[in-house]
Amino acid sequence: MSDFSEVEINAVYRAISERRDMRHFLPDPIDEALLARLLGAAHLAPSVGFMQPWRFLRIRDSSLRRSIHSLVEAERVSTARALGEREQEFMRLKVEGVLECGELLVVALMAGREAHVFGRRTLPEMDLASAACAIQNLWLAARAEGIGMGWVSMFEPEALRELLKLPQGSRPIAVLCLGHVTAFYPRPMLEEQNWARRCDLRSVVAECWSDPQDAGASPPGQG
Amino acid sequence: MSDFSEVEINAVYRAISERRDMRHFLPDPIDEALLARLLGAAHLAPSVGFMQPWRFLRIRDSSLRRSIHSLVEAERVSTARALGEREQEFMRLKVEGVLECGELLVVALMAGREAHVFGRRTLPEMDLASAACAIQNLWLAARAEGIGMGWVSMFEPEALRELLKLPQGSRPIAVLCLGHVTAFYPRPMLEEQNWARRCDLRSVVAECWSDPQDAGASPPGQG
Repeated sequence: MSDFSEVEINAVYRAISERRDMRHFLPDPIDEALLARLLGAAHLAPSVGFMQPWRFLRIRDSSLRRSIHSLVEAERVSTARALGEREQEFMRLKVEGVLECGELLVVALMAGREAHVFGRRTLPEMDLASAACAIQNLWLAARAEGIGMGWVSMFEPEALRELLKLPQGSRPIAVLCLGHVTAFYPRPMLEEQNWARRCDLRSVVAECWSDPQDAGASPPGQG
Repeated sequence: MSDFSEVEINAVYRAISERRDMRHFLPDPIDEALLARLLGAAHLAPSVGFMQPWRFLRIRDSSLRRSIHSLVEAERVSTARALGEREQEFMRLKVEGVLECGELLVVALMAGREAHVFGRRTLPEMDLASAACAIQNLWLAARAEGIGMGWVSMFEPEALRELLKLPQGSRPIAVLCLGHVTAFYPRPMLEEQNWARRCDLRSVVAECWSDPQDAGASPPGQG
Protein backbone atom coordinates (compact mmCIF):
# COMPACT_ATOMS: atom_id res chain seq x y z
CA MET A 1 0.00 0.00 0.00
CA SER A 2 1.34 3.37 -0.99
CA ASP A 3 1.15 6.43 1.23
CA PHE A 4 0.15 8.37 -1.91
CA SER A 5 -3.57 8.50 -2.73
CA GLU A 6 -4.82 7.16 -6.03
CA VAL A 7 -5.27 10.72 -7.28
CA GLU A 8 -1.66 11.53 -6.35
CA ILE A 9 -0.29 8.39 -7.99
CA ASN A 10 -2.22 9.13 -11.17
CA ALA A 11 -0.96 12.72 -11.18
CA VAL A 12 2.66 11.53 -11.20
CA TYR A 13 1.96 9.17 -14.11
CA ARG A 14 0.07 11.94 -15.88
CA ALA A 15 3.02 14.35 -15.67
CA ILE A 16 5.32 11.59 -16.96
CA SER A 17 3.08 10.73 -19.91
CA GLU A 18 2.07 14.28 -20.90
CA ARG A 19 5.55 15.83 -20.64
CA ARG A 20 6.84 16.90 -24.05
CA ASP A 21 10.02 18.32 -25.51
CA MET A 22 8.55 21.65 -26.61
CA ARG A 23 9.83 23.90 -29.36
CA HIS A 24 6.85 26.28 -29.71
CA PHE A 25 6.43 28.94 -27.03
CA LEU A 26 4.44 32.05 -26.21
CA PRO A 27 6.68 34.99 -25.33
CA ASP A 28 5.12 35.69 -21.90
CA PRO A 29 7.54 35.62 -18.98
CA ILE A 30 7.42 32.95 -16.28
CA ASP A 31 6.36 34.08 -12.84
CA GLU A 32 9.41 34.37 -10.56
CA ALA A 33 7.92 32.27 -7.75
CA LEU A 34 7.00 29.55 -10.23
CA LEU A 35 10.53 29.53 -11.67
CA ALA A 36 11.93 29.24 -8.15
CA ARG A 37 9.70 26.21 -7.53
CA LEU A 38 10.97 24.57 -10.72
CA LEU A 39 14.62 25.16 -9.81
CA GLY A 40 13.90 23.88 -6.31
CA ALA A 41 12.47 20.68 -7.81
CA ALA A 42 15.57 20.24 -9.95
CA HIS A 43 17.80 20.66 -6.92
CA LEU A 44 15.97 17.82 -5.12
CA ALA A 45 17.24 15.29 -7.68
CA PRO A 46 19.38 12.33 -6.65
CA SER A 47 23.10 12.75 -7.22
CA VAL A 48 25.96 10.31 -7.10
CA GLY A 49 27.61 10.51 -3.67
CA PHE A 50 25.34 13.55 -3.06
CA MET A 51 27.75 15.64 -5.19
CA GLN A 52 25.03 17.92 -6.67
CA PRO A 53 27.08 18.63 -9.79
CA TRP A 54 24.42 20.75 -11.51
CA ARG A 55 24.74 24.48 -12.07
CA PHE A 56 21.89 26.55 -13.52
CA LEU A 57 22.51 29.80 -15.32
CA ARG A 58 19.66 32.19 -16.13
CA ILE A 59 20.18 33.98 -19.42
CA ARG A 60 18.62 37.43 -18.99
CA ASP A 61 20.58 39.42 -21.54
CA SER A 62 18.94 39.44 -24.97
CA SER A 63 22.19 39.80 -26.90
CA LEU A 64 23.61 36.81 -25.02
CA ARG A 65 20.47 34.89 -25.93
CA ARG A 66 21.00 35.76 -29.58
CA SER A 67 24.63 34.57 -29.36
CA ILE A 68 23.45 31.26 -27.90
CA HIS A 69 20.93 30.97 -30.69
CA SER A 70 23.70 31.49 -33.25
CA LEU A 71 25.73 28.64 -31.72
CA VAL A 72 22.66 26.39 -31.86
CA GLU A 73 21.90 27.38 -35.45
CA ALA A 74 25.50 26.64 -36.54
CA GLU A 75 25.31 23.19 -34.97
CA ARG A 76 21.90 22.56 -36.53
CA VAL A 77 23.45 23.04 -39.98
CA SER A 78 26.45 20.83 -39.09
CA THR A 79 24.11 18.14 -37.79
CA ALA A 80 22.04 18.25 -40.96
CA ARG A 81 25.16 17.71 -43.07
CA ALA A 82 26.28 14.84 -40.84
CA LEU A 83 22.87 13.18 -41.31
CA GLY A 84 23.50 12.69 -45.03
CA GLU A 85 20.37 11.49 -46.81
CA ARG A 86 18.05 12.84 -44.12
CA GLU A 87 19.60 16.36 -44.29
CA GLN A 88 16.64 18.07 -45.96
CA GLU A 89 14.08 16.29 -43.81
CA PHE A 90 16.01 17.33 -40.71
CA MET A 91 16.27 20.96 -41.80
CA ARG A 92 12.48 21.16 -42.01
CA LEU A 93 12.06 20.15 -38.35
CA LYS A 94 11.71 22.84 -35.70
CA VAL A 95 14.30 21.73 -33.16
CA GLU A 96 14.45 24.64 -30.71
CA GLY A 97 12.67 27.71 -29.38
CA VAL A 98 15.67 29.61 -28.03
CA LEU A 99 14.60 33.06 -29.27
CA GLU A 100 10.89 32.74 -28.49
CA CYS A 101 10.70 31.14 -25.05
CA GLY A 102 9.95 33.19 -21.93
CA GLU A 103 12.94 31.98 -19.96
CA LEU A 104 16.27 30.55 -21.10
CA LEU A 105 18.49 28.48 -18.80
CA VAL A 106 21.85 26.84 -19.36
CA VAL A 107 22.73 23.80 -17.27
CA ALA A 108 26.38 22.92 -16.75
CA LEU A 109 28.34 20.38 -14.79
CA MET A 110 30.48 22.17 -12.21
CA ALA A 111 34.26 22.27 -12.39
CA GLY A 112 36.34 20.15 -10.01
CA ARG A 113 34.26 17.00 -10.41
CA GLU A 114 37.31 14.73 -10.36
CA ALA A 115 37.44 15.19 -6.57
CA HIS A 116 34.23 13.15 -6.28
CA VAL A 117 34.99 9.41 -6.31
CA PHE A 118 31.89 7.98 -4.53
CA GLY A 119 29.93 6.04 -7.17
CA ARG A 120 32.10 7.44 -9.97
CA ARG A 121 35.45 5.63 -9.75
CA THR A 122 34.56 3.32 -12.64
CA LEU A 123 31.61 5.34 -14.00
CA PRO A 124 32.74 8.98 -14.06
CA GLU A 125 29.76 9.88 -16.24
CA MET A 126 27.44 9.53 -13.24
CA ASP A 127 27.82 13.29 -12.71
CA LEU A 128 25.98 13.82 -15.98
CA ALA A 129 23.40 11.19 -15.02
CA SER A 130 22.68 13.15 -11.83
CA ALA A 131 22.30 16.43 -13.69
CA ALA A 132 19.96 14.74 -16.17
CA CYS A 133 17.79 13.57 -13.26
CA ALA A 134 17.66 17.19 -12.06
CA ILE A 135 16.57 18.34 -15.50
CA GLN A 136 13.90 15.62 -15.64
CA ASN A 137 12.58 16.78 -12.25
CA LEU A 138 12.38 20.32 -13.60
CA TRP A 139 10.66 19.08 -16.76
CA LEU A 140 7.98 17.14 -14.88
CA ALA A 141 7.34 19.95 -12.41
CA ALA A 142 7.06 22.37 -15.33
CA ARG A 143 4.56 20.12 -17.09
CA ALA A 144 2.42 19.93 -13.96
CA GLU A 145 2.54 23.73 -13.71
CA GLY A 146 1.49 24.03 -17.37
CA ILE A 147 4.91 25.30 -18.49
CA GLY A 148 6.58 23.86 -21.58
CA MET A 149 10.25 22.97 -21.74
CA GLY A 150 12.66 21.93 -24.45
CA TRP A 151 16.16 20.51 -23.92
CA VAL A 152 18.48 21.72 -26.69
CA SER A 153 21.77 19.83 -27.02
CA MET A 154 22.85 21.23 -30.36
CA PHE A 155 25.86 23.36 -29.54
CA GLU A 156 29.60 23.08 -29.32
CA PRO A 157 30.07 22.78 -25.53
CA GLU A 158 33.46 24.50 -25.38
CA ALA A 159 32.17 27.43 -27.45
CA LEU A 160 29.18 27.83 -25.13
CA ARG A 161 31.41 27.53 -22.07
CA GLU A 162 33.60 30.38 -23.35
CA LEU A 163 30.63 32.51 -24.40
CA LEU A 164 29.20 32.25 -20.88
CA LYS A 165 32.60 32.63 -19.20
CA LEU A 166 32.11 29.36 -17.31
CA PRO A 167 35.16 28.12 -15.39
CA GLN A 168 37.53 25.73 -17.14
CA GLY A 169 36.56 22.16 -16.37
CA SER A 170 32.87 22.90 -16.24
CA ARG A 171 30.78 21.54 -19.11
CA PRO A 172 27.49 22.91 -20.40
CA ILE A 173 25.08 20.04 -21.12
CA ALA A 174 21.77 21.74 -21.83
CA VAL A 175 20.16 24.88 -23.13
CA LEU A 176 16.69 24.77 -21.59
CA CYS A 177 13.88 26.70 -23.22
CA LEU A 178 11.03 27.30 -20.77
CA GLY A 179 7.78 29.08 -21.34
CA HIS A 180 4.07 29.24 -21.67
CA VAL A 181 2.63 27.30 -24.58
CA THR A 182 -0.61 27.30 -26.55
CA ALA A 183 -0.85 23.53 -26.12
CA PHE A 184 1.37 20.55 -25.40
CA TYR A 185 1.95 18.26 -28.38
CA PRO A 186 -0.37 15.23 -28.11
CA ARG A 187 2.58 12.98 -29.00
CA PRO A 188 6.34 13.60 -29.13
CA MET A 189 6.99 16.01 -31.99
CA LEU A 190 9.56 13.72 -33.64
CA GLU A 191 6.90 10.99 -33.67
CA GLU A 192 4.24 13.32 -35.08
CA GLN A 193 6.64 14.40 -37.81
CA ASN A 194 7.51 10.76 -38.60
CA TRP A 195 11.18 11.26 -37.74
CA ALA A 196 11.21 8.21 -35.43
CA ARG A 197 8.79 5.87 -33.67
CA ARG A 198 8.32 4.81 -30.09
CA CYS A 199 9.82 1.32 -29.63
CA ASP A 200 7.61 -1.39 -28.26
CA LEU A 201 8.24 -1.64 -24.51
CA ARG A 202 8.99 -5.36 -24.95
CA SER A 203 11.94 -4.48 -27.15
CA VAL A 204 13.68 -2.58 -24.34
CA VAL A 205 12.96 -4.97 -21.45
CA ALA A 206 14.30 -8.52 -21.31
CA GLU A 207 15.06 -11.21 -18.78
CA CYS A 208 18.16 -12.34 -20.56
CA TRP A 209 20.02 -10.70 -23.41
CA SER A 210 20.72 -13.90 -25.32
CA ASP A 211 17.23 -15.30 -24.84
CA PRO A 212 14.54 -12.61 -25.18
CA GLN A 213 11.33 -13.53 -23.40
CA ASP A 214 9.22 -12.61 -26.40
CA ALA A 215 10.31 -14.02 -29.74
CA GLY A 216 8.41 -11.23 -31.50
CA ALA A 217 10.53 -8.51 -29.91
CA SER A 218 13.98 -7.50 -31.07
CA PRO A 219 16.69 -8.49 -28.61
CA PRO A 220 17.65 -5.35 -26.70
CA GLY A 221 20.89 -3.79 -27.75
CA GLN A 222 20.85 -5.41 -31.15
CA GLY A 223 18.74 -2.83 -32.98
CA MET B 1 -3.10 28.49 -15.68
CA SER B 2 -2.14 24.86 -15.64
CA ASP B 3 -4.41 22.06 -16.86
CA PHE B 4 -3.32 20.13 -13.74
CA SER B 5 -5.37 20.66 -10.58
CA GLU B 6 -3.68 21.97 -7.44
CA VAL B 7 -3.83 18.47 -5.95
CA GLU B 8 -2.14 17.03 -9.05
CA ILE B 9 0.58 19.70 -9.08
CA ASN B 10 1.28 19.10 -5.39
CA ALA B 11 1.47 15.34 -5.99
CA VAL B 12 4.23 15.80 -8.56
CA TYR B 13 6.23 18.01 -6.17
CA ARG B 14 5.58 15.53 -3.37
CA ALA B 15 7.02 12.61 -5.38
CA ILE B 16 10.05 14.75 -6.26
CA SER B 17 10.70 15.81 -2.67
CA GLU B 18 9.98 12.45 -0.97
CA ARG B 19 11.92 10.27 -3.46
CA ARG B 20 14.96 8.71 -1.78
CA ASP B 21 17.92 6.58 -2.84
CA MET B 22 16.99 3.52 -0.76
CA ARG B 23 19.35 0.84 0.49
CA HIS B 24 17.05 -0.92 3.00
CA PHE B 25 14.37 -3.22 1.59
CA LEU B 26 11.81 -5.80 2.62
CA PRO B 27 12.18 -9.06 0.66
CA ASP B 28 8.58 -9.17 -0.64
CA PRO B 29 8.25 -9.32 -4.43
CA ILE B 30 6.84 -6.48 -6.49
CA ASP B 31 3.50 -7.10 -8.14
CA GLU B 32 3.99 -7.80 -11.87
CA ALA B 33 1.42 -5.22 -13.01
CA LEU B 34 3.05 -2.57 -10.81
CA LEU B 35 6.49 -3.36 -12.23
CA ALA B 36 5.07 -3.08 -15.75
CA ARG B 37 3.70 0.38 -14.90
CA LEU B 38 7.11 1.46 -13.61
CA LEU B 39 8.90 0.25 -16.75
CA GLY B 40 6.24 1.93 -18.86
CA ALA B 41 6.91 5.21 -17.05
CA ALA B 42 10.64 4.85 -17.70
CA HIS B 43 10.01 4.26 -21.38
CA LEU B 44 8.05 7.54 -21.63
CA ALA B 45 11.19 9.54 -20.88
CA PRO B 46 12.55 12.09 -23.33
CA SER B 47 15.45 10.92 -25.47
CA VAL B 48 17.82 12.76 -27.72
CA GLY B 49 16.55 12.52 -31.31
CA PHE B 50 13.98 10.04 -29.93
CA MET B 51 16.70 7.35 -29.90
CA GLN B 52 15.40 5.54 -26.77
CA PRO B 53 18.84 4.18 -25.90
CA TRP B 54 17.76 2.50 -22.65
CA ARG B 55 17.63 -1.27 -22.19
CA PHE B 56 16.25 -2.84 -18.99
CA LEU B 57 17.28 -6.29 -17.88
CA ARG B 58 15.39 -8.13 -15.13
CA ILE B 59 17.67 -10.26 -12.99
CA ARG B 60 15.62 -13.29 -11.95
CA ASP B 61 18.36 -15.82 -11.32
CA SER B 62 19.58 -15.80 -7.71
CA SER B 63 23.12 -16.93 -8.55
CA LEU B 64 23.39 -14.12 -11.11
CA ARG B 65 22.20 -11.70 -8.45
CA ARG B 66 24.94 -12.93 -6.12
CA SER B 67 27.52 -12.48 -8.88
CA ILE B 68 26.36 -8.89 -9.38
CA HIS B 69 26.60 -8.35 -5.65
CA SER B 70 30.20 -9.60 -5.70
CA LEU B 71 31.09 -7.08 -8.42
CA VAL B 72 29.51 -4.29 -6.38
CA GLU B 73 31.26 -5.39 -3.20
CA ALA B 74 34.65 -5.46 -4.96
CA GLU B 75 34.12 -1.93 -6.23
CA ARG B 76 32.95 -0.77 -2.80
CA VAL B 77 36.32 -1.82 -1.37
CA SER B 78 38.22 -0.18 -4.24
CA THR B 79 36.22 3.02 -3.79
CA ALA B 80 36.95 3.05 -0.07
CA ARG B 81 40.69 2.81 -0.75
CA ALA B 82 40.49 5.57 -3.34
CA LEU B 83 38.78 7.82 -0.80
CA GLY B 84 41.89 7.88 1.40
CA GLU B 85 41.17 9.55 4.74
CA ARG B 86 37.43 8.87 4.52
CA GLU B 87 37.95 5.12 3.86
CA GLN B 88 36.71 3.90 7.25
CA GLU B 89 33.79 6.32 7.34
CA PHE B 90 32.78 5.17 3.85
CA MET B 91 33.01 1.48 4.74
CA ARG B 92 30.48 2.01 7.53
CA LEU B 93 27.85 3.37 5.11
CA LYS B 94 25.24 1.02 3.68
CA VAL B 95 25.50 1.80 -0.03
CA GLU B 96 23.35 -0.87 -1.66
CA GLY B 97 20.59 -3.43 -1.13
CA VAL B 98 21.36 -5.77 -4.03
CA LEU B 99 20.79 -9.02 -2.14
CA GLU B 100 17.74 -7.92 -0.14
CA CYS B 101 15.55 -6.05 -2.61
CA GLY B 102 12.47 -7.66 -4.15
CA GLU B 103 13.42 -6.90 -7.74
CA LEU B 104 16.80 -6.23 -9.35
CA LEU B 105 17.17 -4.48 -12.71
CA VAL B 106 20.21 -3.57 -14.75
CA VAL B 107 19.97 -0.62 -17.11
CA ALA B 108 22.33 -0.43 -20.06
CA LEU B 109 22.84 1.83 -23.04
CA MET B 110 22.20 -0.12 -26.22
CA ALA B 111 24.91 -1.00 -28.71
CA GLY B 112 25.12 0.86 -32.02
CA ARG B 113 24.59 4.30 -30.54
CA GLU B 114 27.12 5.96 -32.88
CA ALA B 115 24.51 5.79 -35.66
CA HIS B 116 22.46 8.44 -33.80
CA VAL B 117 23.73 11.93 -34.59
CA PHE B 118 20.64 14.08 -33.86
CA GLY B 119 21.49 16.15 -30.75
CA ARG B 120 24.66 14.13 -30.14
CA ARG B 121 27.17 15.26 -32.76
CA THR B 122 29.01 17.46 -30.26
CA LEU B 123 27.51 15.95 -27.07
CA PRO B 124 27.63 12.17 -27.53
CA GLU B 125 26.88 11.69 -23.82
CA MET B 126 23.26 12.74 -24.41
CA ASP B 127 22.42 9.03 -24.75
CA LEU B 128 23.31 8.60 -21.08
CA ALA B 129 21.36 11.76 -20.20
CA SER B 130 18.26 10.26 -21.85
CA ALA B 131 18.64 6.96 -19.98
CA ALA B 132 19.06 8.87 -16.72
CA CYS B 133 15.76 10.67 -17.39
CA ALA B 134 14.13 7.27 -17.87
CA ILE B 135 15.54 6.07 -14.56
CA GLN B 136 14.31 9.24 -12.83
CA ASN B 137 10.82 8.63 -14.25
CA LEU B 138 10.92 5.10 -12.85
CA TRP B 139 12.15 6.41 -9.50
CA LEU B 140 9.36 8.98 -9.16
CA ALA B 141 6.65 6.54 -10.26
CA ALA B 142 8.01 4.01 -7.77
CA ARG B 143 7.94 6.58 -4.96
CA ALA B 144 4.32 7.42 -5.74
CA GLU B 145 3.49 3.70 -5.70
CA GLY B 146 5.22 3.31 -2.33
CA ILE B 147 8.11 1.32 -3.78
CA GLY B 148 11.70 2.16 -2.84
CA MET B 149 14.54 2.29 -5.33
CA GLY B 150 18.30 2.61 -5.13
CA TRP B 151 20.65 3.35 -8.04
CA VAL B 152 23.92 1.50 -7.58
CA SER B 153 26.82 2.68 -9.76
CA MET B 154 29.61 0.84 -7.98
CA PHE B 155 30.72 -1.77 -10.49
CA GLU B 156 33.21 -2.21 -13.28
CA PRO B 157 30.99 -1.71 -16.34
CA GLU B 158 32.90 -4.05 -18.66
CA ALA B 159 32.86 -6.81 -16.04
CA LEU B 160 29.10 -6.44 -15.60
CA ARG B 161 28.59 -6.34 -19.37
CA GLU B 162 30.44 -9.65 -19.73
CA LEU B 163 28.68 -11.23 -16.76
CA LEU B 164 25.29 -10.43 -18.32
CA LYS B 165 26.42 -11.33 -21.85
CA LEU B 166 25.41 -7.88 -23.11
CA PRO B 167 26.47 -7.12 -26.69
CA GLN B 168 29.78 -5.39 -27.28
CA GLY B 169 29.28 -1.64 -27.46
CA SER B 170 26.47 -1.63 -24.92
CA ARG B 171 27.28 -0.12 -21.54
CA PRO B 172 25.61 -0.92 -18.22
CA ILE B 173 25.01 2.29 -16.28
CA ALA B 174 22.87 1.22 -13.33
CA VAL B 175 22.03 -1.63 -11.04
CA LEU B 176 18.57 -0.71 -9.75
CA CYS B 177 17.36 -2.18 -6.48
CA LEU B 178 13.57 -2.02 -6.22
CA GLY B 179 11.37 -3.17 -3.43
CA HIS B 180 8.96 -2.62 -0.62
CA VAL B 181 10.36 -0.68 2.32
CA THR B 182 9.47 -0.19 5.96
CA ALA B 183 9.76 3.57 5.54
CA PHE B 184 11.37 6.09 3.24
CA TYR B 185 14.28 7.98 4.80
CA PRO B 186 13.07 11.41 5.97
CA ARG B 187 16.19 12.97 4.39
CA PRO B 188 18.78 11.61 1.92
CA MET B 189 20.75 8.90 3.73
CA LEU B 190 24.10 10.51 2.95
CA GLU B 191 22.81 13.69 4.58
CA GLU B 192 21.48 11.82 7.63
CA GLN B 193 24.83 10.09 8.03
CA ASN B 194 26.70 13.41 7.70
CA TRP B 195 28.55 12.29 4.58
CA ALA B 196 27.57 15.44 2.67
CA ARG B 197 25.14 18.34 2.89
CA ARG B 198 22.53 19.74 0.56
CA CYS B 199 23.95 22.89 -1.10
CA ASP B 200 22.00 26.09 -0.77
CA LEU B 201 19.89 26.51 -3.91
CA ARG B 202 21.45 29.95 -4.41
CA SER B 203 24.84 28.35 -4.82
CA VAL B 204 23.73 26.38 -7.87
CA VAL B 205 21.72 29.09 -9.65
CA ALA B 206 23.24 32.29 -10.96
CA GLU B 207 22.55 34.98 -13.51
CA CYS B 208 26.17 35.33 -14.46
CA TRP B 209 29.11 33.17 -13.56
CA SER B 210 31.52 35.99 -12.91
CA ASP B 211 29.04 38.08 -10.93
CA PRO B 212 26.89 35.93 -8.62
CA GLN B 213 23.60 37.59 -7.74
CA ASP B 214 24.03 36.87 -4.05
CA ALA B 215 27.39 37.76 -2.53
CA GLY B 216 26.72 35.25 0.25
CA ALA B 217 26.60 32.34 -2.16
CA SER B 218 29.60 30.59 -3.65
CA PRO B 219 29.96 31.22 -7.36
CA PRO B 220 28.67 28.12 -9.14
CA GLY B 221 31.34 25.87 -10.51
CA GLN B 222 34.00 27.21 -8.17
CA GLY B 223 33.27 24.99 -5.20
